[in-house]
Amino acid sequence: MTIRTRLTEFFEIEHPIILAPMTPAAGGALASAVADAGGLGLLGGGYADRQWYETESSLITNERVGCGFIAWAVEADLDLFDRALAERPSAMMLSFSDPAKLAARVRQAGVPLICMIHTLEHARRAIDVGADVLIVQGTEAGGHGLVARSTMPFVPAVVDLVAKISPSVIVVAAGGIADGRGLAASLMLGADGVLMGTRFWATRESLIHPAAKDKVVAASGDETIRTSVYDIVRQKAWPAGYTGRLLKNGFIDKWHGREEELRTLHSEELSKVEAAWASGDYDTANVTVGEAVGLINDLPSAKDIVRRTVREASERLGVYAFDQRIAS
Amino acid sequence: MTIRTRLTEFFEIEHPIILAPMTPAAGGALASAVADAGGLGLLGGGYADRQWYETESSLITNERVGCGFIAWAVEADLDLFDRALAERPSAMMLSFSDPAKLAARVRQAGVPLICMIHTLEHARRAIDVGADVLIVQGTEAGGHGLVARSTMPFVPAVVDLVAKISPSVIVVAAGGIADGRGLAASLMLGADGVLMGTRFWATRESLIHPAAKDKVVAASGDETIRTSVYDIVRQKAWPAGYTGRLLKNGFIDKWHGREEELRTLHSEELSKVEAAWASGDYDTANVTVGEAVGLINDLPSAKDIVRRTVREASERLGVYAFDQRIAS
Repeated sequence: MTIRTRLTEFFEIEHPIILAPMTPAAGGALASAVADAGGLGLLGGGYADRQWYETESSLITNERVGCGFIAWAVEADLDLFDRALAERPSAMMLSFSDPAKLAARVRQAGVPLICMIHTLEHARRAIDVGADVLIVQGTEAGGHGLVARSTMPFVPAVVDLVAKISPSVIVVAAGGIADGRGLAASLMLGADGVLMGTRFWATRESLIHPAAKDKVVAASGDETIRTSVYDIVRQKAWPAGYTGRLLKNGFIDKWHGREEELRTLHSEELSKVEAAWASGDYDTANVTVGEAVGLINDLPSAKDIVRRTVREASERLGVYAFDQRIAS
Repeated sequence: MTIRTRLTEFFEIEHPIILAPMTPAAGGALASAVADAGGLGLLGGGYADRQWYETESSLITNERVGCGFIAWAVEADLDLFDRALAERPSAMMLSFSDPAKLAARVRQAGVPLICMIHTLEHARRAIDVGADVLIVQGTEAGGHGLVARSTMPFVPAVVDLVAKISPSVIVVAAGGIADGRGLAASLMLGADGVLMGTRFWATRESLIHPAAKDKVVAASGDETIRTSVYDIVRQKAWPAGYTGRLLKNGFIDKWHGREEELRTLHSEELSKVEAAWASGDYDTANVTVGEAVGLINDLPSAKDIVRRTVREASERLGVYAFDQRIAS
């Protein structure tokens, strides 16, 4: 079964599913696996770490893979950004700050531009700078974002805006989507497809410590929180308002609400977090996932996820048409 | 067109749509209009104001109307609660605190029990005390709630829990739903129907000042905020964690973040708010709506809303089956 939408047509892909460019989960293996399965795989360029980018981009085995960066971070290394564009990715995705400066380079390179948005103002701005695709991300999503909108009401509002001011722009739902139910619901809201992070984070190909993946399989969606504690520890210069959604753990219990104190102790605490990354202690290290964690009970391959999601969505979309629940 | 689900079967109603029991919007006229249109109308018992309840319940013109109360508030007036039950409402809905004590009275009266939930723990508790229907409310909803879950990932998580521990319980999505897109999406997520507040708040029958309704028609979904400032002014004893989502205005701009100061000045500020209610000054008075406000552009009758929502959902559910976008 396939579900064809404007998203599948635009990228000439089989399924309307995009892999979120998560660092470090979405390396070359995961991005390639999603592309192999017929979705759009995006390499997680993240904070623009050169070594990570070089290693992981060299592992890409499918030429139809794109890339995503944290916009404010990659602005500090335009050489890397231009190099990524020169490799002719299937798409370049920009997130988390004004995309104007980088968008011009993307357009000039002739690469399709995907912009993540968190408000209607972001949507207008992204359209102004030439975005082909908007990723409409609700606050239930894992990782960084604004406490601004939730996916259910945000997606149709953006669909309405796009219809009014720039109908050719493609709208993709993100945040809280981890299965075919979420894909089917997003299509009903008017989206052309979905971007999934947390669900692909918990796959075999994801570059995440097995101990963290096991935590995700066990966790409920009630157990996430938005916080800045790991940004403070790592001294990441996130713009005002952006926090990360993560699984609650001992480190967050200890420091959330004590951010000023943490600022003074960041180097000592960073050592602990770095040691925890190495040892797989995810009561101290960060498990960066969204509310959809509650819908995740296994660690299959990315290919299985794409196929299962499309099959489940197709079945649901069909069920409501054919089982007589709708009667004229 | 009709959409039949377990919700329509249980209440023997035509459409899987419930009116949120909002005070003061959902008076006798609005609850009756929703029931007349084939949905489930719930009178907004709210804080259990006897005079309001008596006036508005006397205006009910459809015998198939239910009622809803803020649980912790009506616990202070069990006589009123028992009187409401004695009138044999179609359902009794309890929200915002442990339902156990009141639930026993509802069961004893033989009235169907609806419980609003904000976490999976709430869901388990509501099932334990005998809820027939769970209202699964995301944080994007208007009015009170927890900053806990968003509708998109929360609904399927509750659907999964119910399937596992109590499959006969009916699941209704709430929060961010204002049109047929939201209804169709909720059905895809596995819900048996929707509860809508903000959309019915902005109808002809709603007991809200015209100036407030006009603000809602003009507002975007980016303009809401969760805050406690109006609870402080009115000295409402909300349990910890509960805040209200409202449209941002001058009063919230002034006091949000200065809650301790507001506590000392509450009587003076309450006078201003009360005067603003009377004069229709909604830069000072509260406009209690959710993110779905961005999907609202008119003030039709409640009947028009029910019909339009069902028609739109049916069309969308049909479109995806019949337009060849799904190919086996």
